[in-house]
Amino acid sequence: MRGQMMDQPLLISALLKHAETYHGDTEIVSRTVEGPIHRYTYREAARRSRQLANALAGLGVKHGDAVGTLAWNGYRHYEIYFAVSGAGAICHTVNPRLFAEQISYIINHGEDQVLMFDLSFLPQVEQIAAELTTVRHFVLMTDKANMPRETSIDNLLCYEDLVNSHSDEYEWPEFDENTASSLCYTSGTTGNPKGVLYSHRSTVLHAFASSLPDSLDISAQACVMPVVPMFHVNGWGLPYSCTMNGAKLVLPGPKMDGVNLYELIESENVTMTAGVPTVWMMLLQHCQRNHLKIHGLKRVVIGGSAAPESMIDQLAEHGTEVRQLWGMTELSPCGTTSTPKFKHIGCDTPTLRQLQTKQGRPIYGVGIRIVDDGGKPLPHDGVAFGNLQVRGPWVLSRYFKRELDNSHTDDGWFNTGDVVTIDRDGYMKITDRTKDVIKSGGEWISSIELENILVGHPAVAEAAAIGVVHPKWDERPLMAVVLKPGASATRDELIGYYEGKIAKWWTPDDVVFLEELPHTATGKLQKMKLREMFKDYQWK
Amino acid sequence: MRGQMMDQPLLISALLKHAETYHGDTEIVSRTVEGPIHRYTYREAARRSRQLANALAGLGVKHGDAVGTLAWNGYRHYEIYFAVSGAGAICHTVNPRLFAEQISYIINHGEDQVLMFDLSFLPQVEQIAAELTTVRHFVLMTDKANMPRETSIDNLLCYEDLVNSHSDEYEWPEFDENTASSLCYTSGTTGNPKGVLYSHRSTVLHAFASSLPDSLDISAQACVMPVVPMFHVNGWGLPYSCTMNGAKLVLPGPKMDGVNLYELIESENVTMTAGVPTVWMMLLQHCQRNHLKIHGLKRVVIGGSAAPESMIDQLAEHGTEVRQLWGMTELSPCGTTSTPKFKHIGCDTPTLRQLQTKQGRPIYGVGIRIVDDGGKPLPHDGVAFGNLQVRGPWVLSRYFKRELDNSHTDDGWFNTGDVVTIDRDGYMKITDRTKDVIKSGGEWISSIELENILVGHPAVAEAAAIGVVHPKWDERPLMAVVLKPGASATRDELIGYYEGKIAKWWTPDDVVFLEELPHTATGKLQKMKLREMFKDYQWK
Repeated sequence: MRGQMMDQPLLISALLKHAETYHGDTEIVSRTVEGPIHRYTYREAARRSRQLANALAGLGVKHGDAVGTLAWNGYRHYEIYFAVSGAGAICHTVNPRLFAEQISYIINHGEDQVLMFDLSFLPQVEQIAAELTTVRHFVLMTDKANMPRETSIDNLLCYEDLVNSHSDEYEWPEFDENTASSLCYTSGTTGNPKGVLYSHRSTVLHAFASSLPDSLDISAQACVMPVVPMFHVNGWGLPYSCTMNGAKLVLPGPKMDGVNLYELIESENVTMTAGVPTVWMMLLQHCQRNHLKIHGLKRVVIGGSAAPESMIDQLAEHGTEVRQLWGMTELSPCGTTSTPKFKHIGCDTPTLRQLQTKQGRPIYGVGIRIVDDGGKPLPHDGVAFGNLQVRGPWVLSRYFKRELDNSHTDDGWFNTGDVVTIDRDGYMKITDRTKDVIKSGGEWISSIELENILVGHPAVAEAAAIGVVHPKWDERPLMAVVLKPGASATRDELIGYYEGKIAKWWTPDDVVFLEELPHTATGKLQKMKLREMFKDYQWK
Repeated sequence: MRGQMMDQPLLISALLKHAETYHGDTEIVSRTVEGPIHRYTYREAARRSRQLANALAGLGVKHGDAVGTLAWNGYRHYEIYFAVSGAGAICHTVNPRLFAEQISYIINHGEDQVLMFDLSFLPQVEQIAAELTTVRHFVLMTDKANMPRETSIDNLLCYEDLVNSHSDEYEWPEFDENTASSLCYTSGTTGNPKGVLYSHRSTVLHAFASSLPDSLDISAQACVMPVVPMFHVNGWGLPYSCTMNGAKLVLPGPKMDGVNLYELIESENVTMTAGVPTVWMMLLQHCQRNHLKIHGLKRVVIGGSAAPESMIDQLAEHGTEVRQLWGMTELSPCGTTSTPKFKHIGCDTPTLRQLQTKQGRPIYGVGIRIVDDGGKPLPHDGVAFGNLQVRGPWVLSRYFKRELDNSHTDDGWFNTGDVVTIDRDGYMKITDRTKDVIKSGGEWISSIELENILVGHPAVAEAAAIGVVHPKWDERPLMAVVLKPGASATRDELIGYYEGKIAKWWTPDDVVFLEELPHTATGKLQKMKLREMFKDYQWK
């Protein structure tokens, strides 16, 4: 028997309609690419999104078509998010920090019909425009005054002209909530980027779950500044969750430096912000250098990589709580947060810090488990570490236009590629990446832990641990090390540095010294390349 | 094009599985009907729910069958919630405070196959058992030691025997999320009670939305005591939302008096509780009488009827914030909460109090609007008042086993029967009930406002305003008044009391004095009966 409740699809357009109707005068403040601060309200954002939806129809964008963006966090990008998805098309955010060939590949693979981009990216787009086989219209996200006098792009359209020349009368269409809403590619360290195609349902459910008090805690009492780029997994969903809850939004534009972020936090009374550790390092350095205090910032959500304990301590001095977030493009992205439980109330600081430096426990809707290489589930005891698998309504079921591969198990879980422990309370801690973990005599050694220890040595600038084939143990750890300029250290000194810090059999067998380690365009260490470099390495 | 995200139905069983897996040792504490405090964990609750699901199957309960309950807030009632719905059957909570005939009607209309009830209700059930035509099994929610020696009920089953005699191995079935999950009847002032049939989807979406920071703010850091009965619109959804978020649960059993509630708040460190104003009045009186301070209770959510300002002030002295909740059985029940916005931060107490005494702004997912009698939408300006209509995925689409009637508009909105204002910020304030508003010369007069003023007169114990037919103005207000014992007041004195307090044309035309006013079993004023009493009233 069916329940007798209203049958309403979960649609992205409904988020904007809600904010327009019940949070009409709440502000969206943007640092523009052109320079000045722009401020308007959800009411105005909704009005302009409807104009843009009409404009897109005018450009021939139909239900299911993809519209690409290369853009910073700003109000025009916000409008594109809602206009494109709201109209039933697919908002395809492209990471402008990738190599030109990757950007071209992604736009062509996504079959983007229109490409909208910020002024900053005009040179990049000019360079690749001829290769973009599916793009019929190029739209520069600026006003007439800032349009270039010359460009190699034929018939370059002006965003403001497009919006202003269309009516704001538009009825957001209703359709199946499983309809595709947006598309984002994840670039691994090898191979072509892979697309994740989100749906309206997954996006709205993710907005609900990521807004919960234990997740990102988004409300109309918050002023939220997403520093995480909107081209990076939908800005961790914040454009949606803030709209759902009527939070004031502060979009910091292209300048993610300490000066600009500090200025916005103070002038706009930001209560919550989110981004990777690097930006908070810059913010804290700026504060330290200029003896500045951060006021009113209750919480920083840190994701992308783990927050160092020293950062947590420094932010605490400003009265700012750190919440660790773990996620992936494949998870929309929110998976776990390091939020304490009722039983932790009153715990001492070291205990809480230990929690905060874990990746956290699953937000409702996400299931997590660990399995060994044979797929056998391992206990949640905080000790056993295994391959992390996840599932949930905002986890991808397959990559866009790819065959099902070993990314998923037969019983429907997604292989994250992370090696983790899960403790009795459900808190997960990343130990390594599946492909980087070193398999020695049937046991696993965490490459990350080996690296974390060695970068503590005063002479070491960067360190990478890789498994190299070993006649007896299958693999043994080899450390590739870059020394600090002018510093020196011997192999034996560095090997000795591990003593007492880890189990004896985890100790690396050798150290090689390099000028630099190989990295991707987005700064990820390419261990694959390192392994290739040392595939013929002979143990002494 | 469909998004490529995992296809997972929103099911109630998943809430329990999540709590079991990631909040296994979080407590559920119950004051039992038998007396003592019972405490166990989500892990244990999940285990026993699986045993119960097996037991229900053993009793022949099939997918879509209804299981009725007459029970207080306790762990066995919690297990029934999850076992019945989780198995695909319908958990039908019946309000034991209704008249016997209404209870029989509701159980028969719901076609309950099994009836489970607390010891307190054994006499009531014995009285009506013969009339319950669909019930095949009666289960007393107690252990062997507390089973009655004699009862008129044939083959009365013992809950603990049932649970303990079944295996805890049970796979919660997967099915369509629109499947009916639970059933609750709303008793108006006239006619037969009407059933609202919730679905798994509506229940889980309601749990998400009602857990949001601006709604009830439910998290694993909270210890929640639902004082609102679990037979009253699923305990405002708290059994679900607390399970979703792994909050510690405190179930206060049959004793909702000041002594018991205070004791539980203090001994269990309750951080949040929810219920109708009456219980908080009792709690505050108990504290005042015994010079007690409430510790650690951050928030009281008040619904059912409006919280008086004096109660908000008194709770504030204990460091407890009041959040007003408006809802209906037809809304699962959460509709609006009186939570402030970012722009209200730093407002003075009177401004905040004004917000807090409103019913509040819609939680995400709920749409609200006001229309005049012709169905024309009225402005959200805080002044215009009209019929409140709502919609959303946890609003009923029709009453259970009833034809569609004027409860819904042609464009799919539900008529709440409330007359309200909505201000520019979306905050709704109830002015009257649709059927009680007095229509004078094409304009509306709020009967509630007339009553609220008159009960401020020192001689008046209770007052009701009704519209009585008037030759010139259609209707004019007549006040029915009960004086306090020993007090006296004249008609002219009471009419004069309105001077300067309302618009002149709102002033009632006459007053009649009565010994008592008619009420329903649940204490609702029966204005319908009053109107009938005075239908032949002649204006002088």
